[in-house]
Amino acid sequence: MNRHDGRSADELRPVIIDTDFLKHPEGSVLITVGETKVICTASIEDRVPPFMRGKGKGWIAAEYSMLPRATEQRNIREAAKGKLSGRTMEIQRLIGRSLRSVVNLEGFGERTIWVDCDVIQADGGTRTASITGAFVAVVMALKNFKDKQKIKSLPVTDFLAAVSVGMDLEEQEMLDLCYSEDAAAAVDMNIVMTGTGKFVELQGTGEEASYSKEQLDRMLSLGEKGLQEIFMIQRQVLGDTVNEIGKDDKEEK
Amino acid sequence: MNRHDGRSADELRPVIIDTDFLKHPEGSVLITVGETKVICTASIEDRVPPFMRGKGKGWIAAEYSMLPRATEQRNIREAAKGKLSGRTMEIQRLIGRSLRSVVNLEGFGERTIWVDCDVIQADGGTRTASITGAFVAVVMALKNFKDKQKIKSLPVTDFLAAVSVGMDLEEQEMLDLCYSEDAAAAVDMNIVMTGTGKFVELQGTGEEASYSKEQLDRMLSLGEKGLQEIFMIQRQVLGDTVNEIGKDDKEEK
Amino acid sequence: MNRHDGRSADELRPVIIDTDFLKHPEGSVLITVGETKVICTASIEDRVPPFMRGKGKGWIAAEYSMLPRATEQRNIREAAKGKLSGRTMEIQRLIGRSLRSVVNLEGFGERTIWVDCDVIQADGGTRTASITGAFVAVVMALKNFKDKQKIKSLPVTDFLAAVSVGMDLEEQEMLDLCYSEDAAAAVDMNIVMTGTGKFVELQGTGEEASYSKEQLDRMLSLGEKGLQEIFMIQRQVLGDTVNEIGKDDKEEK
Amino acid sequence: MNRHDGRSADELRPVIIDTDFLKHPEGSVLITVGETKVICTASIEDRVPPFMRGKGKGWIAAEYSMLPRATEQRNIREAAKGKLSGRTMEIQRLIGRSLRSVVNLEGFGERTIWVDCDVIQADGGTRTASITGAFVAVVMALKNFKDKQKIKSLPVTDFLAAVSVGMDLEEQEMLDLCYSEDAAAAVDMNIVMTGTGKFVELQGTGEEASYSKEQLDRMLSLGEKGLQEIFMIQRQVLGDTVNEIGKDDKEEK
Amino acid sequence: MNRHDGRSADELRPVIIDTDFLKHPEGSVLITVGETKVICTASIEDRVPPFMRGKGKGWIAAEYSMLPRATEQRNIREAAKGKLSGRTMEIQRLIGRSLRSVVNLEGFGERTIWVDCDVIQADGGTRTASITGAFVAVVMALKNFKDKQKIKSLPVTDFLAAVSVGMDLEEQEMLDLCYSEDAAAAVDMNIVMTGTGKFVELQGTGEEASYSKEQLDRMLSLGEKGLQEIFMIQRQVLGDTVNEIGKDDKEEK
Amino acid sequence: MNRHDGRSADELRPVIIDTDFLKHPEGSVLITVGETKVICTASIEDRVPPFMRGKGKGWIAAEYSMLPRATEQRNIREAAKGKLSGRTMEIQRLIGRSLRSVVNLEGFGERTIWVDCDVIQADGGTRTASITGAFVAVVMALKNFKDKQKIKSLPVTDFLAAVSVGMDLEEQEMLDLCYSEDAAAAVDMNIVMTGTGKFVELQGTGEEASYSKEQLDRMLSLGEKGLQEIFMIQRQVLGDTVNEIGKDDKEEK
Repeated sequence: MNRHDGRSADELRPVIIDTDFLKHPEGSVLITVGETKVICTASIEDRVPPFMRGKGKGWIAAEYSMLPRATEQRNIREAAKGKLSGRTMEIQRLIGRSLRSVVNLEGFGERTIWVDCDVIQADGGTRTASITGAFVAVVMALKNFKDKQKIKSLPVTDFLAAVSVGMDLEEQEMLDLCYSEDAAAAVDMNIVMTGTGKFVELQGTGEEASYSKEQLDRMLSLGEKGLQEIFMIQRQVLGDTVNEIGKDDKEEK
Repeated sequence: MNRHDGRSADELRPVIIDTDFLKHPEGSVLITVGETKVICTASIEDRVPPFMRGKGKGWIAAEYSMLPRATEQRNIREAAKGKLSGRTMEIQRLIGRSLRSVVNLEGFGERTIWVDCDVIQADGGTRTASITGAFVAVVMALKNFKDKQKIKSLPVTDFLAAVSVGMDLEEQEMLDLCYSEDAAAAVDMNIVMTGTGKFVELQGTGEEASYSKEQLDRMLSLGEKGLQEIFMIQRQVLGDTVNEIGKDDKEEK
Repeated sequence: MNRHDGRSADELRPVIIDTDFLKHPEGSVLITVGETKVICTASIEDRVPPFMRGKGKGWIAAEYSMLPRATEQRNIREAAKGKLSGRTMEIQRLIGRSLRSVVNLEGFGERTIWVDCDVIQADGGTRTASITGAFVAVVMALKNFKDKQKIKSLPVTDFLAAVSVGMDLEEQEMLDLCYSEDAAAAVDMNIVMTGTGKFVELQGTGEEASYSKEQLDRMLSLGEKGLQEIFMIQRQVLGDTVNEIGKDDKEEK
Repeated sequence: MNRHDGRSADELRPVIIDTDFLKHPEGSVLITVGETKVICTASIEDRVPPFMRGKGKGWIAAEYSMLPRATEQRNIREAAKGKLSGRTMEIQRLIGRSLRSVVNLEGFGERTIWVDCDVIQADGGTRTASITGAFVAVVMALKNFKDKQKIKSLPVTDFLAAVSVGMDLEEQEMLDLCYSEDAAAAVDMNIVMTGTGKFVELQGTGEEASYSKEQLDRMLSLGEKGLQEIFMIQRQVLGDTVNEIGKDDKEEK
Repeated sequence: MNRHDGRSADELRPVIIDTDFLKHPEGSVLITVGETKVICTASIEDRVPPFMRGKGKGWIAAEYSMLPRATEQRNIREAAKGKLSGRTMEIQRLIGRSLRSVVNLEGFGERTIWVDCDVIQADGGTRTASITGAFVAVVMALKNFKDKQKIKSLPVTDFLAAVSVGMDLEEQEMLDLCYSEDAAAAVDMNIVMTGTGKFVELQGTGEEASYSKEQLDRMLSLGEKGLQEIFMIQRQVLGDTVNEIGKDDKEEK
Repeated sequence: MNRHDGRSADELRPVIIDTDFLKHPEGSVLITVGETKVICTASIEDRVPPFMRGKGKGWIAAEYSMLPRATEQRNIREAAKGKLSGRTMEIQRLIGRSLRSVVNLEGFGERTIWVDCDVIQADGGTRTASITGAFVAVVMALKNFKDKQKIKSLPVTDFLAAVSVGMDLEEQEMLDLCYSEDAAAAVDMNIVMTGTGKFVELQGTGEEASYSKEQLDRMLSLGEKGLQEIFMIQRQVLGDTVNEIGKDDKEEK
């Protein structure tokens, strides 16, 4: 295996999570994964969207965007085009759904946690970095909310992180693809997993290609290895708050 | 296992594919899966989208829509709202990507195959039924195109079909969820597979829930079983054209 | 007179109305007029649009759409374009207005009947087929509503159907134009009439041409003949419900 | 018959056409019909829309708008809403289609005549006043074009004007409805006619009402009477140019 | 100084304000400044926008538009494009803000004054003419409102008018630029001033150029001279109502 | 004078300009002014917008956006709303126009410099910080372009920076307003100036207030003082490139 940045097939790029990156949001981080940089913020609003009203529970909604020049070539702003691309919608639905799986929506009242993931520099893996960083921002926002005594316990049931795995045209599996690897990959898979090792989302796409069950299993193993390392970084960053995660048991739906 | 329509956990709903359903399109089917009914058409246009121009190859683009009253409650038309929902975009991207993995894009010139999947009645599994039906419509359109001597061989490299699997709140896995099962599921997974048993897409979502590797494996087995049955139905419908599938080897990218 | 399908100038194409075509809507038909096929559904919603609120009466709103490949050449979806064409708006306003003229809006409370006309195959006359089919779907939905004892009598004051007539470049009038006749016509006229022979809508357009009062009169006669035949078909399809039409007298406005 | 402004049933409101109302357009008029005032301009652009390219003929496109406070209650601007209403689209399609029936499109090259009808004050009959005024503006623009020797003869084949007729709830027919009459009418009909007395458009709408053939005939007679008077006013305004109308014979399509 | 229309550098074009130009609005004027003509109307609506609700005060909102053929070349309608240009938004924000500075928003209840400025002919200075004309329309609407005894005093604290000044490429300052002067100017400045000589808005733009403090001062002097003349015209037009302006003291915010 | 952060009336907040902040753009800075932080990038594209084609010169276009949580309260994304606000359009037009006044558009061929200003944290003065930062990013992008020998000299004719000044309700003038000062100000003025002390833009707005010529002069003096300090910071950041500014004389238009 010969990765252009010298990594081995099962090696993550360096992951750094800077907390309290911005002044105004309840929770905010700058997550850096190799050359990919994403600002993730969590904002708590005192109401829920119409379809959730009157249910006595909250909601988590995510939005994702890239600066026009986060990429090698400048992209036209979606605000200027007047509509979101399918890719953006897919990603923000994925981020929101993933976070909702580890937060007890009954645990913070009829409120919405708005998660904003703004990519300021992109080099592959922006959606997985967004999920990993957004989890920390959400925990911090809820911790902050608990410290203000608006809720009694932290309604976070487990850790959550995401990573990409893939397979190149020589059918070699690898962990955490950078942009050039992703562009050349035969298979691209995003894995979202809980701290206790269960899948929340699995999205594996053959790009005009396909993959066998054995190849799937090898990719899932690589992903699990990488995710264990990412959970360690989240734990370091969250400090004592780690002890409050998983203490508020989410009721059965 | 007690499914409300009496099926066993590994049992498909009846699948019927009516071919030549409409007069104008090059290929068209009405696919019925239980109570779900989708009109799938394939139209060949003599040009490609801007990003594909001058590459000497074709493109497959898919669009998906539901009649407002395909569902229990009437939905507002996306044309009236003036924009596509994230769900619609996600589905049409999935359909297009899946079909491109089994069609040799070099094999039909700088043309676009437009795939239109219009759900006239919905009872769960509309995206997987769309893929299964659209594959047949695309093969028929290309066969028709070959019969007119516009191409020399059928540029279809393999069969393609899709099915859903899921897991309910009692952690019981099952095949081919109808709407009420889907609405109540803890995990919802769509599997798109080739006739030779390789994955093209795997999308497994825990709905505010998660699943283990063992559960994943059991769901994948159920899916593979169902897909083998669906491939049989596609073969019956396609008749002699079956023999031309996989004969035009898709070159390595 | 030499029509390409062998019809005489005053001959309708075959009209077939399949009822209960879909599972979910309160009323639904598939109407076939020659090669033109339209799914018409009627859905009753428990509220009215803002401009009708508090008036103690209901509303009928119609929407019209074509599948992209209902036509010889594929059309771009209006949902993809993000707006309705002028033609679509004109047609759906016509359908709604026509139906409101034979339904007593005071007779079903502050509710909206949504009429959806989706053309799955087009060969001319889609708007008139939509009106003819939608009338049956609306009657069935209201009958169903009465059977559930939500209303006491059927608030339908008369039959309603529509047909096209036209004049070709040789100034020959004819009934029920198919697409190729319509495209070549000098004059195109749509007539919407009640079962008692009164006009509800008359829209006669010279396509870069004009017509005299005598020609108008001849076209109206052809239209009336065709409409009498269509009313017979509606009567057969509606069975005993026919006896309830016109029994609920619409009050003077 | 007792009309609130003292007119008899077959009496027009005063019609005044001020020519050369604006400085920039090739042709412009302010048409006043009672209290209704519309600025109609005709602008000649040196290209045609995409669907007309390469056919060696021109096009006429019309746009219609109202000032927000043309009416009793202020209307929201369509530019602010970001889309045209169905009513606006219907009217501008009607204006364009009507004008195209009396102008020889082969007679002014691959150019577009843009017709803009801007209602500055509305009191019923804005669409018919627009057609009557726009005809004069178009003739003036083409005359101006001929005077600049860009075309050899005036490609106008006949006069064109429009008027409304209607029937009130007492089934009394009347000519040229003002706003309050229109709002209360059972039947509202717009007639577009050529100077030689042939119909170009006939749009008769029962507003939750219907009308018999005899009533139709009476309304058409009223309309024809009014239109003859309007043609006289157009003739006075156009002066000597009148002699050039109908001299350029439009070829058969 | 050699202006193409023979004016001296400090000379305004003729300004005419026709009042009660339209029938329906509470206040309306046609303002003519040289060849520039703008219809300004003021409409009072019995509610305020959401962000002003419950504050016990009113709002003034302005909209600005041009007829497509107000200009030498026809412009595409913003309603047809489906969005307002940046230029339009800038102008309507400027008009609204300017008017709000001389009207006591506490003085007419929770109502909105809608100001519509529709340019029917453009020859430079449309935004300043709009402000000058709109002020008169607003005073007339409020006077009318007071006459109906809906308010006790006229909540207008001062006069308001606007004018443009500029500097050409030879660094010559001049007052009230017409279109050709504006298009060639190095600096373009709009001054909005109160009757007591205080600035409300000052917007001075170097068009790929810049200007010194001395040049700024000379332009401001020219502007003040022109504005004094415009205030005289407003006074003549408003008659006795002039005496009510400035009597209702606006409280400190 | 008692400013809440202890500054004197003529004191700027600390200004820091970090260069080469992002990896991909030709020029990029993070500018910090007190608590306001803006990422400014400059990207050079090898074509110009349609209205500039074939003129042998380039263009500078600016876009401005805020992260949803740059502010105390979360704002809805303009991409989600599907349109830009008037405020955003006004700001991006101002930034582009200002930069064009100090760059020789003939000096870099038919290319567009895209300037993107993304506010990641807002505390007043985001538009002036954007201009000050964008100037540096543009110089760096052009320097980079010259180093690659695509242009021979740096087509920058002068320095450019911007600052806000204002006046509070006690009629006290002050320099560089933070958000709370801006929200409470009676007058808000933005000054864009060249390094040689000439005005490029002056926008002074009385917020439901007005200001005299004397107050204007005092505000302009404050602004000039602040701008001299900002030019020093730009000079430090640009290093030797400073010597190339103003060497390429912009020709007269």
